[in-house]
Amino acid sequence: MERVGFIGLGIMGGGMARNLIDAGHDLIVWNRTAARMDPLVTAGAAASAAPAEVARDAGIVMICVSDTPDVVAVVHGPGRLLEGITPGTLVVDHSTISPAATERLAGAVAAAGGRWIDAPVSGGSEGADRGTLSIMIGGAAEDVARARPYLEAFGSTITHVGSVGDGQRVKIVNQILVVVNQLAASEALLFAQAAGLDLEATLDAVKGGAAGSWMLANRGPQMISRDWRPGFTIDLQQKDLRLALEAAEELLVPLTATAHIHHLYLALQRDGLGGEGNHALVKALERMTGIRLGDP
Amino acid sequence: MERVGFIGLGIMGGGMARNLIDAGHDLIVWNRTAARMDPLVTAGAAASAAPAEVARDAGIVMICVSDTPDVVAVVHGPGRLLEGITPGTLVVDHSTISPAATERLAGAVAAAGGRWIDAPVSGGSEGADRGTLSIMIGGAAEDVARARPYLEAFGSTITHVGSVGDGQRVKIVNQILVVVNQLAASEALLFAQAAGLDLEATLDAVKGGAAGSWMLANRGPQMISRDWRPGFTIDLQQKDLRLALEAAEELLVPLTATAHIHHLYLALQRDGLGGEGNHALVKALERMTGIRLGDP
Repeated sequence: MERVGFIGLGIMGGGMARNLIDAGHDLIVWNRTAARMDPLVTAGAAASAAPAEVARDAGIVMICVSDTPDVVAVVHGPGRLLEGITPGTLVVDHSTISPAATERLAGAVAAAGGRWIDAPVSGGSEGADRGTLSIMIGGAAEDVARARPYLEAFGSTITHVGSVGDGQRVKIVNQILVVVNQLAASEALLFAQAAGLDLEATLDAVKGGAAGSWMLANRGPQMISRDWRPGFTIDLQQKDLRLALEAAEELLVPLTATAHIHHLYLALQRDGLGGEGNHALVKALERMTGIRLGDP
Repeated sequence: MERVGFIGLGIMGGGMARNLIDAGHDLIVWNRTAARMDPLVTAGAAASAAPAEVARDAGIVMICVSDTPDVVAVVHGPGRLLEGITPGTLVVDHSTISPAATERLAGAVAAAGGRWIDAPVSGGSEGADRGTLSIMIGGAAEDVARARPYLEAFGSTITHVGSVGDGQRVKIVNQILVVVNQLAASEALLFAQAAGLDLEATLDAVKGGAAGSWMLANRGPQMISRDWRPGFTIDLQQKDLRLALEAAEELLVPLTATAHIHHLYLALQRDGLGGEGNHALVKALERMTGIRLGDP
């Protein structure tokens, strides 16, 4: 087994790193806010002073930060990852970022003798904690095979989907499905409300059949009880939709539903609701229609 | 056990009636096209000459036809159902029709001493054959309880959702979810195609997680292999969307996504594709974008 580095110990990375320790792996960690390293050090990980040190010390370096500029800031600059890459270092990027930027980052790491796979995850903080994430991976088959035993510590569905960048592209497909399925749940439940239906009975009647979706089954009950706590925040959803719409521009693919939903979420961000869960999309329809879920 | 009448032996009703016989119920059937009764008579059902005869002969009369005018034509007129209703006859309408018309039909049957529950189904012809339909029921609790032992012959999820008409309203909720989830699958898979992704690997990576839906899991594989055979035809889907949009007008509920999809399907009906499955929705997006699923 190789020593594993982990960079980015936020709400996702923290749970993933913890699962690596629990699976018995030898872990060295780094986080921009150093205090976030403490609980993992207590659990047995080594702390490091800089990404370059992680790269020098570990054969496999996982990254889990928020956005494209965050990954760029981990890789490039004094004391950053690229300075510590040695021949054969494998970088595994779990962040959800631009596919085009991913190809550039992978090229820079390859020029230093390293390897790169993009491995964005789906399943939220619950998935990270429970080790049940879906991981969609782009990269060379031998690199994916090398990473797999470590990914199994926190992923229950690990799919090699193509070459470098394709993991990010499949993550975009994933996010298009998530938000349009959420639109379906929002429009359908508002109709149910306006029709005077019992919302719980309605959910029970439809969620297990041809109308079913993960979003309806998991977020539908939250919606009808007006519980807007995030599994995944609107702000992060918008970041991912921006990646989708940028890729759509590059590829000249109209994404009319996704673009529409991005702008519905903008209306909610404008009112300071970016920290609510992505199922609060229904609030944008509530404003448009004047119908309110849960009203008698 | 009561004798059961069954009116309407099409692709759905035929399978449901067969399951009633297989469960040991005493069945009397009627169908507009008389030849459709033959296989059920061979299996043990009695054939009848008119709906009124079915109503005189059976305590519970199930109807499974296509649209509102079809149910009206079964109930009203010489030799029709209303002529045979006796005190306590329970009519169970499995057709998907207008909630407002349902209330009128139920009123007419009640005036003749009968009872009515609306019990539209979801799950397609496979569900009717296998006895795994979802049944969403509007009506009085005692009528639902009386029908339940018979419904269990072909339904695996039987939900009493409210009073007369509410079964039809929940079915509308169901159909909004079905078509918007189908739009999600269509937009996402076209993006995947344009991005050069392996469509099968993409489906495998996303269908089990937060992006998952019944439509994606069941129709996604058909879409990527360009198999447009219907589980549920565009023509029937459009009939149901018309019911949704009529109800939306009555209730003053904007259904912007559903209305948009109804018009996308219209473009396909215009080209004679109404007999294809509802997952052929992606063809409307293919035309708009010039991207074609399955192209190399």
